Amino acid sequence: MADFDVRILGCGSALPTTRHMATSQVINLRDKLYMIDCGEGTQVQMRQMRIKFNRLNHIFISHLHGDHCFGLPGLISTFGMLGRNAALHIHAPKEIDQYLLPIFEMFNRGLSFEVCIHHVDTTKHALIMEDRSLQVYSIPLNHRVPACGFLFAEKQKEAHLIKEMADFYQIPVKFLRSIKQGADYITPEGEVIPNNRLTRPPEAAKRYAFCSDTAYHPSIVPFVSGVDLLYHEATFLEEDAGRARETFHTTATQAAEIARQAKVKKLVIGHFSARYDNDRRHKEEADKVFPGTILANEGMVLPL
Amino acid sequence: MADFDVRILGCGSALPTTRHMATSQVINLRDKLYMIDCGEGTQVQMRQMRIKFNRLNHIFISHLHGDHCFGLPGLISTFGMLGRNAALHIHAPKEIDQYLLPIFEMFNRGLSFEVCIHHVDTTKHALIMEDRSLQVYSIPLNHRVPACGFLFAEKQKEAHLIKEMADFYQIPVKFLRSIKQGADYITPEGEVIPNNRLTRPPEAAKRYAFCSDTAYHPSIVPFVSGVDLLYHEATFLEEDAGRARETFHTTATQAAEIARQAKVKKLVIGHFSARYDNDRRHKEEADKVFPGTILANEGMVLPL
Repeated sequence: MADFDVRILGCGSALPTTRHMATSQVINLRDKLYMIDCGEGTQVQMRQMRIKFNRLNHIFISHLHGDHCFGLPGLISTFGMLGRNAALHIHAPKEIDQYLLPIFEMFNRGLSFEVCIHHVDTTKHALIMEDRSLQVYSIPLNHRVPACGFLFAEKQKEAHLIKEMADFYQIPVKFLRSIKQGADYITPEGEVIPNNRLTRPPEAAKRYAFCSDTAYHPSIVPFVSGVDLLYHEATFLEEDAGRARETFHTTATQAAEIARQAKVKKLVIGHFSARYDNDRRHKEEADKVFPGTILANEGMVLPL
Repeated sequence: MADFDVRILGCGSALPTTRHMATSQVINLRDKLYMIDCGEGTQVQMRQMRIKFNRLNHIFISHLHGDHCFGLPGLISTFGMLGRNAALHIHAPKEIDQYLLPIFEMFNRGLSFEVCIHHVDTTKHALIMEDRSLQVYSIPLNHRVPACGFLFAEKQKEAHLIKEMADFYQIPVKFLRSIKQGADYITPEGEVIPNNRLTRPPEAAKRYAFCSDTAYHPSIVPFVSGVDLLYHEATFLEEDAGRARETFHTTATQAAEIARQAKVKKLVIGHFSARYDNDRRHKEEADKVFPGTILANEGMVLPL
C-alpha cells in the first residue's frame, strides 16, 4: 500500500448509471483516511472496497448538490451503529447546516460521537484543515451553487537518519528528533557535525488537488500548479461545450487544458455525464491536450 | 413477465454489508410499479435491475428509520432530472414531513412534478390507496418508532368472455364489458343467457403482504391470513431472541410462526442482520416451522 493514495468510490455525475456511482473519494495518507464528497451509496462502496470506517475522521464536501452529499446521513448513522467514539469533522460550505441539522435532529439523537461541522468559505483559497502530516486548502470553483475544490498538501517529511553516523558519534536518543528535522549535532567536545552528514533527505512532499464541480475556470491554475495528481471534472465532451457552459461543468478538453496550463504531473478525469455510453471519447479528447490522462473508475486506487 | 410480482432491491438491515442493500422492494402489477421503502442506493438498484423509473407513481414507506428512507432524496432528484411530469405519491407515517420537507426546500425547488405526501396512520388497519387494479391496506406493526406493513390486494379481475358464445349470440360490443363483469345477456327476443354460459371465471385475485420492521406481533395474523406471499422480517436467529426483543425485531422462527398461523401460501424472509455471515441458518430455522421458506436476496423476482 502506498503512503499516499486516492481511492475512487464514485465518479459519475448527477444521474445514476449502471457504470458509475455518485461522487466520493477517499484519500489515504499513511493509513489516515480523508473523504471528499459523499454521494448516495458511498458507505456501500466503502464496504466493497474494504476501506476501514474507523480510520476516517474528516469529510470534505465540495458543494451541496445531492450527488455529492446524499450519502452523509447513512454514513453517519452507520458510524453511530458501529459505536464510534472519535469526533467526525465535516468541512463544507455553510449550506450544510440547512441540510444536515434537521436530519441529525430526527435520526441521530444520542449519537455516540460528536459531529463537528466546519464551514468552508468557497470564495477563498485558504488553509481549512491541518494535522501532523497534512494541510488541506480550499480552491474556489465556479458552479451553480457555492462550490470549492480541495488541495491536499502533504507536509514535508522528516529526513532519514543515517544510523551508522548516529552510532559513530554516539548521539543520545533525545537529539535524534531535532536532527531528523534539520538540526546539526554538537558533540560533548563542542564539535559541530553538520546535518547533511547525519541524514539523507526525505522524499518530496506530495500534493493532490480535487476540482469538481466547476465550469472551465482557469483562475484555479495557480492553486493546482505542479501538483502530483489533479482530479478534474470532465462531465461533457467538447461537442457538448454549450451544455457544459449552461450547467457550469467542464469538457474533457477543458479539463486537460487546466492540467496543461498548471503543469500537473498526472491528470485523472471524472464526473462523467450519464448521456455517454462509455468514457473512451473523454480520454481521446483529453489526451490530445494532456497525454496520458487517466479515466477515473469505481474501485480505482491512484498512488501519488 | 408475471402479471403480479415482487422484486427485491434490498433486504439487509441497518448496517450495510457487501451482501445486502438497505430495504426496498418494487411490486409490479400489470406493468404498474409500486415501491415499498427506499433505503440508500435504491435508485442504483433500480438501474441495475432495469426497473423503469416512469412506471413508478406510488412509494410506501413503512417507518422513518434511515435504512428504509435515505434513498428518497436521491430518487426524487433523479425523477426531476429525468423530466418527470406525473405526480409522485408518497404514503408514509406523518414523521415523513420533518424529514423530506426541509430537503425539498433545499434541493428540489422548481421540481417538474408534484410530490403528494399521504400520511398513513400506523395504528390502524385501513385502506390507504386504491386504483383500478389494486387496494393497499396498512398493517399496524410493533417497532421502536411508528411503523406499519402493507397489504397489496389485487382487485378481482374481469371474467374471460367465451368468444364462440359471443359470436353465436351476436352480442353487440357495447354489452361485452358488463358481461365480463358478471351480467347476463338478454337477446333482442328477450331470452336470458346466463353469465356462466358466456364467460369463464377470472384468475383469483392475489394478495401480497410486507411486514418489516416489527417485533414478533401475532396480532397481524388476521390481516395477512391466507395471502399468496408474505414478506416478513427475520433480522435475527432464535439464539439472539433477546436482542430481537430489545430492538423490536423478529427471529426467523417467529417470522415462520406468523406465516404458519396465518396459513399464507408462501413466506419470504429478509432484513437480515449484518452480524451473520450468511442467511443459511435463517432458512433452516424458518423451514422447521414453515417448510419451503424463501430467503430474500437482491435482484430476486417473486411471481405471485
